[in-house]
Amino acid sequence: MRTADIIMKKRNGGKLSEEELRFFIQGFVSGEIPDYQASAWLMAVYFQGMDPEETGHLTRLMMESGDVMDLSSLKGPLVDKHSTGGVGDKTSLILAPLAAACGAQVPMMSGRALGHTGGTLDKLESVKGYNVSVSQDELKDIIAAAGYAVIGQTEEIVPADRRMYALRDVTSTVESIPLITASILSKKLAEGADSLVFDVKCGSGAFMKTLAQAEELAASLVKTGESMGRRVIALITEMEEPLGRMVGNFLEVEESWNCLTGVGAPDLMEVTTALCARMLVAGGICGDSEEASALCRSKISSGEGADYFKKNMMAQGADWDWFLSRCGSWRAPVKADFRADRDGYIRDIDAFGTGMCALGLGVGRNKATDSVQPHTGIHFLKKRGAPVKKGDVICELFAVNEGDADKALTALESIVTIGSAPLEAKSLILKEIGA
Amino acid sequence: MRTADIIMKKRNGGKLSEEELRFFIQGFVSGEIPDYQASAWLMAVYFQGMDPEETGHLTRLMMESGDVMDLSSLKGPLVDKHSTGGVGDKTSLILAPLAAACGAQVPMMSGRALGHTGGTLDKLESVKGYNVSVSQDELKDIIAAAGYAVIGQTEEIVPADRRMYALRDVTSTVESIPLITASILSKKLAEGADSLVFDVKCGSGAFMKTLAQAEELAASLVKTGESMGRRVIALITEMEEPLGRMVGNFLEVEESWNCLTGVGAPDLMEVTTALCARMLVAGGICGDSEEASALCRSKISSGEGADYFKKNMMAQGADWDWFLSRCGSWRAPVKADFRADRDGYIRDIDAFGTGMCALGLGVGRNKATDSVQPHTGIHFLKKRGAPVKKGDVICELFAVNEGDADKALTALESIVTIGSAPLEAKSLILKEIGA
Repeated sequence: MRTADIIMKKRNGGKLSEEELRFFIQGFVSGEIPDYQASAWLMAVYFQGMDPEETGHLTRLMMESGDVMDLSSLKGPLVDKHSTGGVGDKTSLILAPLAAACGAQVPMMSGRALGHTGGTLDKLESVKGYNVSVSQDELKDIIAAAGYAVIGQTEEIVPADRRMYALRDVTSTVESIPLITASILSKKLAEGADSLVFDVKCGSGAFMKTLAQAEELAASLVKTGESMGRRVIALITEMEEPLGRMVGNFLEVEESWNCLTGVGAPDLMEVTTALCARMLVAGGICGDSEEASALCRSKISSGEGADYFKKNMMAQGADWDWFLSRCGSWRAPVKADFRADRDGYIRDIDAFGTGMCALGLGVGRNKATDSVQPHTGIHFLKKRGAPVKKGDVICELFAVNEGDADKALTALESIVTIGSAPLEAKSLILKEIGA
Repeated sequence: MRTADIIMKKRNGGKLSEEELRFFIQGFVSGEIPDYQASAWLMAVYFQGMDPEETGHLTRLMMESGDVMDLSSLKGPLVDKHSTGGVGDKTSLILAPLAAACGAQVPMMSGRALGHTGGTLDKLESVKGYNVSVSQDELKDIIAAAGYAVIGQTEEIVPADRRMYALRDVTSTVESIPLITASILSKKLAEGADSLVFDVKCGSGAFMKTLAQAEELAASLVKTGESMGRRVIALITEMEEPLGRMVGNFLEVEESWNCLTGVGAPDLMEVTTALCARMLVAGGICGDSEEASALCRSKISSGEGADYFKKNMMAQGADWDWFLSRCGSWRAPVKADFRADRDGYIRDIDAFGTGMCALGLGVGRNKATDSVQPHTGIHFLKKRGAPVKKGDVICELFAVNEGDADKALTALESIVTIGSAPLEAKSLILKEIGA
């Protein structure tokens, strides 16, 4: 088998066999196939795509390039949720304890902030003591104690993806449905979950800008995941404005805690409940999503969701008193208010712009080696559709210095749009695919 | 400017500016842009193509990556011919002295055998003493003395193409019209010719298998060359059976000499005369190709073409007596005859198969570092359309050992096809493009 022939076959629109894909992926991981051949192949895949069978083989081969966790000793259905990345998206922090309270076991392998999107690991690490680097045995202990665990991807999990993603990033071959599918699914399958829920974000703040793109990715994730014997549901959810009221690291953990104690923003709770309900359905805990949504909500009013949140915090090393004593008050030193310049209704808070604005405040990273600020960010007092009077505070900024604050205030002028007419309320859940 | 953005622009079908192409080519040649980004870009170009302006910029930038010869001190029009590569194609060896005899100056930078195609340099080097490695000053002296010179590509000429071709070869990005155009033209322009004639071969033994592909390449070569201020004519010629009677190294030099002394095979003379005539038209020596063809033929009957052949041989160091004394007799030691297995008419002598068969005899190279045999090859006594009786010798093989000869005899069984009906004679000149 010659690497150039495999590239040519894909370039010409051919279907690669499992054997050819194995030769390619194993050669790529071992370094026998050089990056310059791999990148030509990636570009050929970008143009010619892959059918579901090829995507399934690629996913499995990438998963098998590293460790695959065995969590079968844990009781209860193993369910996880994965989002394609948004702005203000702290649903994981809320739905994991709710799903745990409903009887699910949630092994959650999360990511870090990059570009305009936030990262669950960075958010949790803003809490003193919280540790996301745990061994497989510790992971099982944490899930047994708290119903869920949040950890980072280790070096041993899907090394093929780490190598391939780094190459795709610099060769403009990121935006390919089969490559995205294999990248996401291989990691989720390696972490040992039986059932998976995907939140495919759609809109300005999302990787997928149009509903058609989001549908294509959602369908590919469901089809490929099911072909590998998992129960998979995908929701396409809108990401035009930031989700909830907070964009930041500690700010978002604080907001998550508020949601679990009953004071969540409606948009955030709609998406969180919808996703958590699909986890319960995919995991076989509930028969349909209406029943599951009601069960989720009951775990907020009963306080059980909040209990699991605290259990996880403690199990992963967080200083609970430190956390509680800072909720509502721990903010970066420079505060600035962004105010309405006219009467009207908020028509848009552009999610991508907000993410980039938060990045400027130190919430996120330009590149993977940057560090983040724990206590900077944006707190929206008004969101899309809200009536405002000229001079009303729309959001508060928390920055480490005046320069950052000024830049953010200027940026917000083109991020927030105020119109004359009220908006019609609409659901953020655009579509459900699978199961 | 970011390399990944340039890749993405081309991937998305955008048109690259001269500045973007300069950034890319200079970065690639200097090594600042790594091969893995260059190969992704090459694959994007394969899929999205380039318009004539982009192809022109790419060609010039590649040419400017190395030395550009200045032959302006030579008197008379500087004209060259380039073939896309065929089997038994020794037209260069015949038309260069003919064009020189007609007053053209021909700086001919030629290639070596690779795969099924032969190489002009290998053929000439089969003659004792012939030297193709000469300095620019020596080149001018040779052209001044003999009207033409045949040299190899130096390290200093278009280094971008050498690097890029090596990468295209292993990443399955060879078959791209703009990349082929830039590769061919950048070298031809760097050698200093004012006018160019291209022989775009079409058929089994050619790189372009269909007339549509050949037309696309021919049009691109003409359009791009003209946009750079050169007079360019392309002929598309058929390459379904080997050209002429000989396939080998010394064998083909011998056949070329025979042609110049008046005993050339009709197919070979048709293509050679047609190409030489276009050189005279492109160089402004003749007003049209009929007049030019007649002038070419007159240079054979007058013996002037043969004189220039001898002048070049001497000027490039060949032992003329050694050459003449071996014509008609110098053959590899093992001779084998391939005979007709039935009565009929030769329907086909597959050019690609013949090239591979000759490669097996040592005429060519599997890879660039292989060496070649000077005196092996195939001599066709009958060609397409010829009537044969069972037992007639169709061709003679000359091999260095019995094993090679046996393999070649077996291969010829599927290369030569004999039919029952006579064939209609047809021209090998399929189309003319340009000027």
